[in-house]
Amino acid sequence: MDLNDDAVQRHQFSDRVLIKSILTRPDGGAGLAGQQVRVGGWVKTGREQGKGSFAFLEVNDGSCPANLQVIVDKDVADLGQLVPTGTCVYVEGMLKNPPEGTKQKIELRVQKVVDVGMVDPAKYPIPKTKLTLEFLRDRIPFRPRTNTIAAVARIRNALAYATHTFLQKQGFLYIHTPIITTSDCEGAGEMFQVTTLISDADKLEKELIKNPPPSEADIEAAKLVVKEKGEAVAKLKSDKAGKEAISASVTELTKAKENLARLEERSKLKPGIPQKDGKIDYTQDFFARQAFLTVSGQLQVETYACAVSNVYTFGPTFRAEHSHTSRHLAEFWMVEPEMAFSDLKDDMNCAEAYVKFMCDWLLDHCFDDMEFMAKNYDKSCINRLRMVASTPFERITYTEAVELLEVAVKEGKHFENKVEWGIDLASEHERYLTEVKFQKPVIVYNYPKGIKAFYMRLNDDLKTVAAMDVLVPKVGELIGGSQREERYDVIKSRIEDMGLPLEPYEWYLDLRRFGTVKHSGFGLGFERMILFATGIDNIRDVIPFPRYPGRADL
Amino acid sequence: MDLNDDAVQRHQFSDRVLIKSILTRPDGGAGLAGQQVRVGGWVKTGREQGKGSFAFLEVNDGSCPANLQVIVDKDVADLGQLVPTGTCVYVEGMLKNPPEGTKQKIELRVQKVVDVGMVDPAKYPIPKTKLTLEFLRDRIPFRPRTNTIAAVARIRNALAYATHTFLQKQGFLYIHTPIITTSDCEGAGEMFQVTTLISDADKLEKELIKNPPPSEADIEAAKLVVKEKGEAVAKLKSDKAGKEAISASVTELTKAKENLARLEERSKLKPGIPQKDGKIDYTQDFFARQAFLTVSGQLQVETYACAVSNVYTFGPTFRAEHSHTSRHLAEFWMVEPEMAFSDLKDDMNCAEAYVKFMCDWLLDHCFDDMEFMAKNYDKSCINRLRMVASTPFERITYTEAVELLEVAVKEGKHFENKVEWGIDLASEHERYLTEVKFQKPVIVYNYPKGIKAFYMRLNDDLKTVAAMDVLVPKVGELIGGSQREERYDVIKSRIEDMGLPLEPYEWYLDLRRFGTVKHSGFGLGFERMILFATGIDNIRDVIPFPRYPGRADL
Repeated sequence: MDLNDDAVQRHQFSDRVLIKSILTRPDGGAGLAGQQVRVGGWVKTGREQGKGSFAFLEVNDGSCPANLQVIVDKDVADLGQLVPTGTCVYVEGMLKNPPEGTKQKIELRVQKVVDVGMVDPAKYPIPKTKLTLEFLRDRIPFRPRTNTIAAVARIRNALAYATHTFLQKQGFLYIHTPIITTSDCEGAGEMFQVTTLISDADKLEKELIKNPPPSEADIEAAKLVVKEKGEAVAKLKSDKAGKEAISASVTELTKAKENLARLEERSKLKPGIPQKDGKIDYTQDFFARQAFLTVSGQLQVETYACAVSNVYTFGPTFRAEHSHTSRHLAEFWMVEPEMAFSDLKDDMNCAEAYVKFMCDWLLDHCFDDMEFMAKNYDKSCINRLRMVASTPFERITYTEAVELLEVAVKEGKHFENKVEWGIDLASEHERYLTEVKFQKPVIVYNYPKGIKAFYMRLNDDLKTVAAMDVLVPKVGELIGGSQREERYDVIKSRIEDMGLPLEPYEWYLDLRRFGTVKHSGFGLGFERMILFATGIDNIRDVIPFPRYPGRADL
Repeated sequence: MDLNDDAVQRHQFSDRVLIKSILTRPDGGAGLAGQQVRVGGWVKTGREQGKGSFAFLEVNDGSCPANLQVIVDKDVADLGQLVPTGTCVYVEGMLKNPPEGTKQKIELRVQKVVDVGMVDPAKYPIPKTKLTLEFLRDRIPFRPRTNTIAAVARIRNALAYATHTFLQKQGFLYIHTPIITTSDCEGAGEMFQVTTLISDADKLEKELIKNPPPSEADIEAAKLVVKEKGEAVAKLKSDKAGKEAISASVTELTKAKENLARLEERSKLKPGIPQKDGKIDYTQDFFARQAFLTVSGQLQVETYACAVSNVYTFGPTFRAEHSHTSRHLAEFWMVEPEMAFSDLKDDMNCAEAYVKFMCDWLLDHCFDDMEFMAKNYDKSCINRLRMVASTPFERITYTEAVELLEVAVKEGKHFENKVEWGIDLASEHERYLTEVKFQKPVIVYNYPKGIKAFYMRLNDDLKTVAAMDVLVPKVGELIGGSQREERYDVIKSRIEDMGLPLEPYEWYLDLRRFGTVKHSGFGLGFERMILFATGIDNIRDVIPFPRYPGRADL
């Protein structure tokens, strides 16, 4: 926001002024003295002073980490209502320079209290004491009112907008890949199923209790009625009865037939999930087949990369893994760029430029929040951003990485997991490379084909694939990507060699059959990027509504 | 992208030049003559000329609707491979000014063909003939290669980035609300269920076939072994046997006990979905309770609005409705801003400013795509954007709207649906108001409480709520919003009056109990905005991977 010296920026569609637009000016707001403003926010701390003649409130509206100091005289409002932590205040007054020697550059003298949202401190879910992040995980609706979770929200927001800005500037189109999918990208997914079969069965069960299906006797009786009505029609016709009488009789027959059909239809209804040949009958499910939550938008976004060249997806992805670690969520966000006419080197260049852009962005747009994180969670987080933004990433092959790790082992370094060519690197290996060996981001590329997905491009050595992982200090793997196999025959063999069925991938193979293109892409775990930036340890604290085994609050 | 006169912009991480950066310059690219470039794309049309001595290719890379004219001599490549529609070409050459009198301002003379992705025209899924959008819905992986679906992708992308840009500029934080939820926002949702119970049951069934559970005889036998081993230990002890012998015997007893425990555990395994008291036992499901796909992020994002004041969510939402209309999808995207310290008027101001911003953005950033739409789908779409961007929206109460509709009926206008105070407006009513009566966007506000959700703020008349709908020509309702009920007692009564259970909303009520704040927000159906902008009729054509009853391709 551009601000000139002698006016605060007012909201485009309300009278309120964001506290950020007062306090984050280069002069700390001092130049705004004399301005009449309305501000709203929640009281962080409040205290009555001067024997109850006025109150000091530290008010925060979430627009920046800093609080505005607000002063209310007892003539203006009931001070006792205003001071409890968590109270919401919407106030109007004049900005003034505080007395010399105080920390603030500006404070608000309240003339009118527009609204108050009160708090009973005895019952407030987040008491004023120092709270652990774990404690806050049990108070999801209120944790955004803490300094930490609000700062994380601003950093997360900044990284999301940085992502869009970077990719849009480079000509990438944002493509919304599907959440509900009938493809399994990894070919071995722990996927959540999406279904209406259970709720349909519940509805049917309730319906059948309220309105039981007809018995065989009911149906027999209905058949009898049809027969009788039929005979009545026949009799009237043979008696040459009047047109009207015959017509009335035919109407009755039709009704009887309809009633019978309805009963026969209802008699087929069975409670429970529909079965066919001893298996669940998915033709009855909403999409007429089994459907799941996506684990990655990559395969789908490739259809766009193979048509409009530079694309990306940024959305939620899901894993139904029963992992209770600090690094896994059942629902998390991924950024997945995909570029046509590009090889593994272009892919690495793009990934490196993107990570650097995000680091610069945070330093430019969230420095006050980063200072808060440095002070409270991770002293080195600001320096880490600066280092990553300015240092070229080291690039080594997987084979070189294994050699370096073997040297480390020889020199006495102990790893829990075995180091051997052909085995995937463990987190401890990745962190050794980036944190100890190189002390900067490292891109490891050309992995053994046996440990990577079928769609990664086979290298000429026939042993490795053109895959790459970006490793960064603090979190290890931040990005995984590859050049995609664009050769029809090769990818077909790879699918078969891995024992996967061809049929579900026919559409994917078609992209290689018709107008195939060299292309590459990668996926960045968005929450990992936030862990990396903030230095926070548990992934459950950097997503607003964490989902993991046994927990899906709200 | 800024371009100076004498250089084309090269990609930051590859050698390729986007066709957009050549053709969308003010001079149509003429000033770039003499530049050496690499371009990639797919052949729209190709033909051999001069008795096969060279080929003309119209090449498109998705960066803009226009094609680059590319000329290849027969010495450079096998021309027959290059000309089929759908062929992918990656070529290097020199930009040249074409002969006077041609439409193009610049063309590419190829010196080297870097890569070709061939097409067998007889088998290509999207033949060169004019294709219907319906036909393309059966060819999801290839439809982005058509001019229409590519233009829609660019317009969709532009609207998404416009959304972020507008809201970020206004100080809104982007909050990722959950996709998997245990709350039902509307209180009456047709929701998709998310579960691992079925796949867990499948796994268990397979496991039990491979490795059947123990019979009662197996367990009896194992019990007998335990008994024998126990007796053996007792005997050794009473015989005062050596320490070693006793220890070995105890080890055997322990093993026997473990084996029995394992068998007893396995004997409890039953195929099928776990039941308890005749109902599905959701404590066994992934989240230890029933979980669904979200229908709206509003309730959750309110927890952030009531902490950091201005927020929005932009993500996928879901409805398991069996509707086969051209206006409904099972998976669609919504933009939901939420503002603390704001009332219904602020909400309307924000909605109007946002829609206008998007219209201006498309005119500024996608004019060539809009021209394509105007030419092929909706002559009036550009004028509609201009009108909406520049005309103040009409604002009328629901009561006034009903009066206007009643006047229309009196004057002979026929509606399928009844017009009466207290009944929701039908789409035909909405379109009459915006298209016929006012011929501009209309905001209808203050709806009867009986037809709106429990969370909308009750007006002082106790009959209406502070709700508003934004109606626009072509699609009718584009936005629905409201001021939220911030008064604890009032919202509690409203939930009870509507016959909803209180328990699931306790966390939502807590936001009103502690530091409550006046706030408001709205939801914009993102696909509706694209229908409005493009003039396309069917919502299935404006989302990359449409999901509806019976269909979830890829």
